[in-house]
Order: sequence, then structure tokens, then C-alpha cells
Amino acid sequence: MNKEKIILIGGGGHCRSVIDVIEAEDKFDIAGIIDKQELIGSSVLGYKVIGCDDDLQLLIKDIKNAVITVGHLEDNSLRVSLYKKLKNIGFTLPTIISPLAYVSKHTTIDEGTVIMHQALINANVKIGKNCIINSKALIEHDVTVENHCHISTGSILNGGVIVKSNTFFGSNATSKQYSNISGFVKAGSVFK
Amino acid sequence: MNKEKIILIGGGGHCRSVIDVIEAEDKFDIAGIIDKQELIGSSVLGYKVIGCDDDLQLLIKDIKNAVITVGHLEDNSLRVSLYKKLKNIGFTLPTIISPLAYVSKHTTIDEGTVIMHQALINANVKIGKNCIINSKALIEHDVTVENHCHISTGSILNGGVIVKSNTFFGSNATSKQYSNISGFVKAGSVFK
Amino acid sequence: MNKEKIILIGGGGHCRSVIDVIEAEDKFDIAGIIDKQELIGSSVLGYKVIGCDDDLQLLIKDIKNAVITVGHLEDNSLRVSLYKKLKNIGFTLPTIISPLAYVSKHTTIDEGTVIMHQALINANVKIGKNCIINSKALIEHDVTVENHCHISTGSILNGGVIVKSNTFFGSNATSKQYSNISGFVKAGSVFK
Repeated sequence: MNKEKIILIGGGGHCRSVIDVIEAEDKFDIAGIIDKQELIGSSVLGYKVIGCDDDLQLLIKDIKNAVITVGHLEDNSLRVSLYKKLKNIGFTLPTIISPLAYVSKHTTIDEGTVIMHQALINANVKIGKNCIINSKALIEHDVTVENHCHISTGSILNGGVIVKSNTFFGSNATSKQYSNISGFVKAGSVFK
Repeated sequence: MNKEKIILIGGGGHCRSVIDVIEAEDKFDIAGIIDKQELIGSSVLGYKVIGCDDDLQLLIKDIKNAVITVGHLEDNSLRVSLYKKLKNIGFTLPTIISPLAYVSKHTTIDEGTVIMHQALINANVKIGKNCIINSKALIEHDVTVENHCHISTGSILNGGVIVKSNTFFGSNATSKQYSNISGFVKAGSVFK
Repeated sequence: MNKEKIILIGGGGHCRSVIDVIEAEDKFDIAGIIDKQELIGSSVLGYKVIGCDDDLQLLIKDIKNAVITVGHLEDNSLRVSLYKKLKNIGFTLPTIISPLAYVSKHTTIDEGTVIMHQALINANVKIGKNCIINSKALIEHDVTVENHCHISTGSILNGGVIVKSNTFFGSNATSKQYSNISGFVKAGSVFK
């Protein structure tokens, strides 16, 4: 089967994790990575940096799909502006789901969101656009995650939680049931 | 194959998670949900509330299996009394195990206990009756969990721990090896 | 297929977990356990204690593979000295990987290291010799774990972390990205 091509926007550490997910999913053919001008020609896990932001207008003639592989720690403004730019140019931002993750069929996940290895999305969950649901994160029943959020590695959103747009929910953090979360939540903390 | 029918006792958030597990396990046919009188006719993930507690005597003529889908946070008295009532009427309370969970073959799990998605039960473990081993919980080697306990989402019982009956072990809590646990353990805490 | 034989060095709690992994992996035939003289003839999950350390010189004539199944809590000196002894005698110390774990193909794992159930080793990771990567541990992209470390149950090493030799990283502990870790890290703590 001919797989559709995809380009990856950002060639850092999170990119390596996403490459691993895309390879495992085996649904897209990674055509290359977009990063800074001076990195063109270098490679990440064997995939070449083929251009910088200025080349996106040209690249879309050949490649319809893109995934943002820039991380999101304190600040997600770069991910948000990339999302807008890619949409404006006309890229499709597919949902990428690791085959090692579990996503309940009673759940909706919006465009540009990536579900990493061994994440678990339980029943009656809604996840917005351009989110990272990172490795081993657990999203319990009835949770809503709005747009541009990063639910970090191994963190737990318990039942009925609402996570507002642009939230960073730290690695191994835990939320109480039915809480409302926004802003920056520290790694390992308990949010009530 | 004709699957056996099962009814679910309690139609809240935990019920939605258990429905997801029963559907994934594909062993039982969900015949409906038991909840308050005024909810009869409403539905949960597409399954109808078909009766209230008073109807159980009649329903058992057609449906032999029941699973308690009421949650257990501070207080498990409702789960315990439902367990006794269902046993008195004559229901079978099967063990429900997510196909996404791992249960060592060197382990015993008693009736009415539900093992949720991506939980891991290691070797030489004993789990009692009417427990919830919630999503992504980890029960290490040589642990004993007595009856009517809730081992919450993503929590970790390390090797040799004993959990006394009626314990609530909070989400993402961690126990030291060979500790004795009872009562209420807070989310995210470390129990020594 | 004839599986190669392996002996297990140490018959305690961690041994039971490793037996479960070896049985699930179905690659080796457990020929028996090495423990104290007075335990010879007793058994662990159905496998006999067949000798003590003094018998290793003889046993290698028939059995080429060994795995250290002594645990590592505060102190790993026993695991380190056993490693040296087994290497001196000439045993092969294979890498044991649970089929329930995920190990990225962009990763290297050295001899004598055991990857327990539902552990996740992401892309571009290097793991040294004689380590325990315990149940549900998460090792993110670009991490280095040196020799003789124990990454405990459910703990999280975030991207780019370096873990120095002989480290104990406690159960459910979390590390910040790109930190340098050595010594003893407490269960449930956040390492910055």
C-alpha cells in the first residue's frame, strides 16, 4: 500500500518520540523534517531536515500532511503559531495515534493531536486540536481536554476533569475528579 | 457465539469505564443498567437504565450475572451493601478483566472484582471480592488485596504489600514494599 | 523449538516477577534457581532451588545463560558482585525483555538487563549492563541509563536524562528533562 506522505515540524527530542509513534502506526511515510535554515541536511533518526518554515508553501504541492513535533513545556506559543500557519497554508493535520495507546471508541479526538505510546483515553472523553497526550498518560472517563494542551508523560486526569486550552499538565501529575485545570501544573503534583 | 447477559448496577462515571472494559472483553452482553427509579428509560453510552434495585428479584429470572458499577471514593458502604444484596438474590458476580490488562497466571482474583484497562497484576498476588483495580494500577509480586478495596487509577502497590478490606488507595499513590495498608490513602501520596 | 536453558540467581520477590517475564517471553527454559545452601530443594513458583553460588562452576557445563534475580533497593553491591562472578565463570547474561514492554528499535540495551512488564523505552535511549527496568517504568527519548541501575516500578525518566551507574531511582519517582541523576532517589519524589 502506498502510504501518504507527512512532514514533521521541529526536529528536537519530542520529534524523536513522534517518529517512533509514526513508524509504529505505519500509516504515513515521513518525507522529512522542517527546522532552522542551518540544520537543513542534518538528520533525525535517519530522516533528513529538508527545509525551513519558508519552504512550507512549496512543500505542500507534494506533501499534504503535517504534524507539529515541537515540544510544549512552559510555553506553547510556538506550537499555536505553527498550527495557525500550517492551517493557513492548507496542510491537513491528522490525528496520530500510537498502536500501543488505547483510545475508547466512545471518544473524540480533534485534528493535529498526537496520542503517544501506551497512553490510555477512556470512555466519553473529548480531546481538542493540537494537543500532545504524552507517553503513558491516562485520561479517565468524561474528561474534556481543550485545544493546544500538553498532558505530559505518565500524568493522570481523573474522571470528569476539564482542562482549559493551552494548559501544561506536568509529568506524573494527578488531578482530582471533576476539577477544572488551566495554566501550568508542576510535575508530580496533585491538582484538586 | 451467544454471550451471557449481564446487568450493571449504577449508571455514573465509573459505569462508563466499566462498559468500555466489558465491550473490549467481549464476553458478556450488557442487558441494561440498574439505577434510581427516576432514571429509568435514560441511557449510558447507549445502554438503557432498565430498572431500580426493587426490580432485581424479577430480573434474575432472565439475567444471571451482575457487576457493581458504583464507584468507591471516600466511602464504600454502598458497594458493600449492593454486593450482599446481589449475592442474597442469587446473582453471579463474575470477575471482569480488561484484555488490555495483564494478570499473571500465578495470581488469584475473587468474584465481583473488576480489572480495568492497562492494569498490571504481577506474580503471586491474591485479590479479594468486589474490588476495583482501576486503569493503569500496578500490583506487584506477592501483594494481597482483601475484599471491597479500590486500588485507584495509576497507583502502585509494591512487592509484598497487604491491603486490608475496605481500603481506598488513591490515584497515583505509591506504597513501600511489604507495608500494611488500610483505610483511606490520599491521591499522589507515598505510603510507608 | 528447543529453548535454551537459563538459571536464576536469587529466589526472592524480584525473582517471582522475573519468572513471570521469562515465562511470558517464552525464549528460555528455566532450569532452576541458585540461592542459599539451606534453600536447596525448596521451590519458587514451581521452579526448584538447584544449587548455591559454589555450584555455578559445575552448572555452566550444562547451562550457559544466567539472569540475576536478586533485587536492588538501597544497595546494589550484591548484584554487582554477582555480575562479576557470573562473567568470570563465563555465563552469558542475556537481555530479558517482557513481550508486554515496548522497546523502540532506535534503542540499545546491554547484557544482563531485564525489562519488566509494561515498561516503555522510547527512541534514542541507551541502557547499560545489569539494570532492572521495572514494571511500568517509562524511559523517554534520549535517556542514558548506565550500568547496574534500578529504575523502579512506575517511575518516569523524562527526555534526555542521564542516570549514572549504580543509581536507585525509586518507585513512581519523576525526573525533570535533561537532569543528571545518581545515588538514591526516593519513591514518589520529583528529581530536578
